[in-house]
Amino acid sequence: MALKRSNGRDNRTLREVTIERGWSENAEGSALVSFGNTRVLCTASFQPGVPRWLKGQGTGWVTAEYGMLPRSTNSRMDREAVKGKVGGRTHEISRLIGRSLRAVVSYPELGENTIVIDTDVLQADGGTRTAAITGAYVALADAIAWAKKQGHVPEGAKVLIDEVAAISVGIVAGEPALDLDYNEDSTAETDMNVVATGRGLLVEVQGTAEGQPFSKDELGDLVDLALEGISTLVDIQRTTLAS
Amino acid sequence: MALKRSNGRDNRTLREVTIERGWSENAEGSALVSFGNTRVLCTASFQPGVPRWLKGQGTGWVTAEYGMLPRSTNSRMDREAVKGKVGGRTHEISRLIGRSLRAVVSYPELGENTIVIDTDVLQADGGTRTAAITGAYVALADAIAWAKKQGHVPEGAKVLIDEVAAISVGIVAGEPALDLDYNEDSTAETDMNVVATGRGLLVEVQGTAEGQPFSKDELGDLVDLALEGISTLVDIQRTTLAS
Amino acid sequence: MALKRSNGRDNRTLREVTIERGWSENAEGSALVSFGNTRVLCTASFQPGVPRWLKGQGTGWVTAEYGMLPRSTNSRMDREAVKGKVGGRTHEISRLIGRSLRAVVSYPELGENTIVIDTDVLQADGGTRTAAITGAYVALADAIAWAKKQGHVPEGAKVLIDEVAAISVGIVAGEPALDLDYNEDSTAETDMNVVATGRGLLVEVQGTAEGQPFSKDELGDLVDLALEGISTLVDIQRTTLAS
Amino acid sequence: MALKRSNGRDNRTLREVTIERGWSENAEGSALVSFGNTRVLCTASFQPGVPRWLKGQGTGWVTAEYGMLPRSTNSRMDREAVKGKVGGRTHEISRLIGRSLRAVVSYPELGENTIVIDTDVLQADGGTRTAAITGAYVALADAIAWAKKQGHVPEGAKVLIDEVAAISVGIVAGEPALDLDYNEDSTAETDMNVVATGRGLLVEVQGTAEGQPFSKDELGDLVDLALEGISTLVDIQRTTLAS
Amino acid sequence: MALKRSNGRDNRTLREVTIERGWSENAEGSALVSFGNTRVLCTASFQPGVPRWLKGQGTGWVTAEYGMLPRSTNSRMDREAVKGKVGGRTHEISRLIGRSLRAVVSYPELGENTIVIDTDVLQADGGTRTAAITGAYVALADAIAWAKKQGHVPEGAKVLIDEVAAISVGIVAGEPALDLDYNEDSTAETDMNVVATGRGLLVEVQGTAEGQPFSKDELGDLVDLALEGISTLVDIQRTTLAS
Amino acid sequence: MALKRSNGRDNRTLREVTIERGWSENAEGSALVSFGNTRVLCTASFQPGVPRWLKGQGTGWVTAEYGMLPRSTNSRMDREAVKGKVGGRTHEISRLIGRSLRAVVSYPELGENTIVIDTDVLQADGGTRTAAITGAYVALADAIAWAKKQGHVPEGAKVLIDEVAAISVGIVAGEPALDLDYNEDSTAETDMNVVATGRGLLVEVQGTAEGQPFSKDELGDLVDLALEGISTLVDIQRTTLAS
Repeated sequence: MALKRSNGRDNRTLREVTIERGWSENAEGSALVSFGNTRVLCTASFQPGVPRWLKGQGTGWVTAEYGMLPRSTNSRMDREAVKGKVGGRTHEISRLIGRSLRAVVSYPELGENTIVIDTDVLQADGGTRTAAITGAYVALADAIAWAKKQGHVPEGAKVLIDEVAAISVGIVAGEPALDLDYNEDSTAETDMNVVATGRGLLVEVQGTAEGQPFSKDELGDLVDLALEGISTLVDIQRTTLAS
Repeated sequence: MALKRSNGRDNRTLREVTIERGWSENAEGSALVSFGNTRVLCTASFQPGVPRWLKGQGTGWVTAEYGMLPRSTNSRMDREAVKGKVGGRTHEISRLIGRSLRAVVSYPELGENTIVIDTDVLQADGGTRTAAITGAYVALADAIAWAKKQGHVPEGAKVLIDEVAAISVGIVAGEPALDLDYNEDSTAETDMNVVATGRGLLVEVQGTAEGQPFSKDELGDLVDLALEGISTLVDIQRTTLAS
Repeated sequence: MALKRSNGRDNRTLREVTIERGWSENAEGSALVSFGNTRVLCTASFQPGVPRWLKGQGTGWVTAEYGMLPRSTNSRMDREAVKGKVGGRTHEISRLIGRSLRAVVSYPELGENTIVIDTDVLQADGGTRTAAITGAYVALADAIAWAKKQGHVPEGAKVLIDEVAAISVGIVAGEPALDLDYNEDSTAETDMNVVATGRGLLVEVQGTAEGQPFSKDELGDLVDLALEGISTLVDIQRTTLAS
Repeated sequence: MALKRSNGRDNRTLREVTIERGWSENAEGSALVSFGNTRVLCTASFQPGVPRWLKGQGTGWVTAEYGMLPRSTNSRMDREAVKGKVGGRTHEISRLIGRSLRAVVSYPELGENTIVIDTDVLQADGGTRTAAITGAYVALADAIAWAKKQGHVPEGAKVLIDEVAAISVGIVAGEPALDLDYNEDSTAETDMNVVATGRGLLVEVQGTAEGQPFSKDELGDLVDLALEGISTLVDIQRTTLAS
Repeated sequence: MALKRSNGRDNRTLREVTIERGWSENAEGSALVSFGNTRVLCTASFQPGVPRWLKGQGTGWVTAEYGMLPRSTNSRMDREAVKGKVGGRTHEISRLIGRSLRAVVSYPELGENTIVIDTDVLQADGGTRTAAITGAYVALADAIAWAKKQGHVPEGAKVLIDEVAAISVGIVAGEPALDLDYNEDSTAETDMNVVATGRGLLVEVQGTAEGQPFSKDELGDLVDLALEGISTLVDIQRTTLAS
Repeated sequence: MALKRSNGRDNRTLREVTIERGWSENAEGSALVSFGNTRVLCTASFQPGVPRWLKGQGTGWVTAEYGMLPRSTNSRMDREAVKGKVGGRTHEISRLIGRSLRAVVSYPELGENTIVIDTDVLQADGGTRTAAITGAYVALADAIAWAKKQGHVPEGAKVLIDEVAAISVGIVAGEPALDLDYNEDSTAETDMNVVATGRGLLVEVQGTAEGQPFSKDELGDLVDLALEGISTLVDIQRTTLAS
């Protein structure tokens, strides 16, 4: 029996997803991604050269940072810059985004170049990290295309070896549900973020029992559901990049 | 003789200015303001109550913070949260925005309530602080309207005693020019930010000789030019708030 | 065909695991846990009362922190206290340990009391976070027993609703392997940490493709292997606590 | 009608100003400046060479820092070193002092040398930033003279292209007043700091409406008054440096 | 045979010591103390009341902080506020000064009041911590006198149970020497700071072998020499406070 | 008349002292030292090369850091890494340990190599700094032996010019006592830490009057008692290193 969700969708349906490519004029690649009311600005900054400790190895570097505007959330959060430190959750998500994108990048093909991904949440309604990964892939692809046009990377280099997208799944009111919004996430018994490639292989699986621990079978069901959602997201990425 | 500006406008003309009211679903008031390619997201967070040291005085509190996304600029800046401290320029601008808005707020009419303004630069092309003040006024007005609807502030309270907007002026290539973009700002001999009210009175004047020091007459010309621009900005604010 | 591992064990075997209960004289509960050469000192500090924001709700609080001594590792790391900030990895692991232990604690049964878990790595050879969780459970159980003897918690309270332990698994040289040491972990294609209860239910699953992405089937195999290992760890916990 | 001021002076008169040149034995240039009870120790540290990012450009570097002793004020302030961060006001004033001095320095004439200005408030009674600029100019001049004697800078180099001094003005009790002390500053409706050169040209104008916004005419009156005061200050600087 | 010292004094003679009482108009007690070219501004801030954790115990609180202006030294040091942390040496000296003064204060006689001592080095030439303690005692005595006049402390309260002063001694060129200046300190084989009371009893002895370790007899000689010097300093304190 | 001490020992007797050499597998030298219930893990990290500012001078570098695990103490302390700064006491002790070890190291014999000592308190019951110095000497000696075997230091180099150990002494209940535990330390009138060499010469003497100031004679008695204790500690070090 289907979960009754606030916006009328059923358990296996994504929220409305849009990716506005090239939103920023300054960045080499950029995308404003929305998963329902969640809105994340993703930029990819291409910098010829690598940090000193990587020089001379013929290999590149991709890293990511995540942040939330103070009033992206329902009640205002203190600014991390003002608090003078990056919080644990921010650190954790930045690292996840970086690993996810690196999983589809060939460093030798990138050559001695650096790409810094920034994902900043303008409005939060659950799923900010999965939206960030999904949008960042588009920004990354555009930055690489830019670098080829500028001659920083050879035209034929296969820098991207696959696509990558991410979605959250969870057990809400006893049933598996796809792409949780903030309210669903707050009440989920189990909460999982899945990152996978265009070919349907897993890059990251992070599942947490918020209430009841879960069985191996439930894990399997959730992963299946997530892979379905990611397949749809990859289609949206392809359409966006083809436009 | 008019300065030839990159976008065809003359010395006394603003860039295209737009204010998208209610851009954020979470904040009590919000506006996405653009001065040409400069884009700033302004939110106003209304919180019943005041900090402890203000309690029992029947008076409110308005404060502001400013930030830039790392890739809002031409080349990526390090994130202040990562550096672990707020830079001098950020501090300076946050304080300017706060003072500017407080100049048109009646604390007794606001009552024991707090409004926190956040202005985050999504894309920077000069004039971010003046765009921030101009947009923040709209967000502030909407947050106050919200508070009246919710009964936190009496319907008839005259919380806003005037309007406020801001613009930059400068001496570029020897001539006074209005609303400098990044390139013009970088080459200006004198750079000035002016904040004024809807009635045309000055709230802040901050002029700096970047190259040649300037005379008292030049100061007067720049202020006149700024007041013209601010008058136009106030019209745009009025139109936006009337819509 | 079995992976040839440096210490002669096969793919499905844990390293030697020991738990020295009551290692610290000062803490209410403590354990020095070893997984092979990995050695983690776990203490549980029981404090009557809860933070102010929890008062009057009849519910307790369990939190955890993780740290590494600077020379626990092969080459010396800078001290986080000296750097003035907690790193992303440390944050991430502290949060994981806290969530894992909270999954088996009944807050209402704990009452308005706080338990702070500290897990400090004295020597690191892979699997520090899983050793930390496994040892911390023993320290936690002892701190609760202490609190019952002191009368802070009723003798019959069922504060612990299950046991909890954790292990790492990974795909090394193409095959699933249990309880990776540092060398194996560095070369693993996929690296997963699994936290589960004494009843064999999952609390956390965190899998990362370090090299090749992995299939849903591989995920299933790894989880099966981890659950076997955790079952052995829970036996060791039981023996330790019975002694 | 003249404002009745606590110390008997009229609206257009400075407080007693003294500049004790060479107060510090260690610095290349130094001055202890007093504006009434405000006392600021200014030192100029000459360092041959420039920061790495400036090397090879034949150009120098002048920068400034400002601080207050914790009990320079009426009630003790926390030490910024103890708080672990520089506050917004401190940042703002440091930047102002640096810009003001750079306005009269020719970098090519200075050559590849660095001068760091420190201005530390020993006792505060309003006008600390303007006293700091006025005293720092003397310290700067002496450091340059020292560098010429030592041969770091050619004897004939015209490093200083003008003099620079600063004063505060404000509208107090409805009338323009020069060089506000702490009590006057606290009650001023408009508060302005003006920095100008020995030739009477403006380097910085920073006016803020603390109470009522001000008209363009009031701005003009205040600037006139400030320029008068600065002219007197420059005379005192000249006398000091001639002694 | 006497050590030939740069300024002609012999081994057992202090540098010229002056204490300018009441140097600061804002602090309840203050003194500008000089030991030769070392100059330290000491202020004592009296605050009725104690920190929350001391309330209701009828007892007071005395604490101290130490700082150096960036160009108090021969070559400029970075500002601790800018570095964002207090260094180890600063911490160590602040704690020493606080302990030294507390040794002569009766908390019950002080009542529930707080005195914060600030000692800021304006010019450094060795012995800054001993000058700071010696001057701070005068500032402290004046702050207590002020508090009695204001009625915060009963007129007859014996808050100060003794006097306290401090001096450095060391083995320089093989011989014990009193009150080392910076050059002597840099070459001393053993360096010792001694704090003692007006009655000649020891409060702190901190001796360090910079080069050769020292014997128990040498320790005894150094302490004797220090007690002589402190006796002279206490005379100067008495004369200052009697004026 | 002898002080009655909690553990039956008399005033002139050390607690049980053990030094477990080679406790850590990763460090070049290590020792787990116990003074009664005080337990400190000491590691010495040998790194070929010196910091840049020392290069080319043919001289080495030895430094030390001290830390306490949060629950090494009776009630849990906050972690310094979490607070984001190293406290004054920690700084002070780190510096003392570093100076003490450097006093017996010949830098020219060490050559251009760095040794970093880490001393981390696993359990605290008074005397942690003296245990740390005593244990660190053993770790240091082993790291130097390792460096000779590896060829980083010539076999015949006399890097260690003496032994070094440390002990606390104090006046407890009116009588001198050796090696204070936490309870004794808390009630001591005078508290002194003494560091001396194998030959019985003093390296550091740090005495503090916690209650009554002390006379020069009392100082002498305490130093005598400490030198006796240190002589015993050096014997234990020799036995440990000979094993």
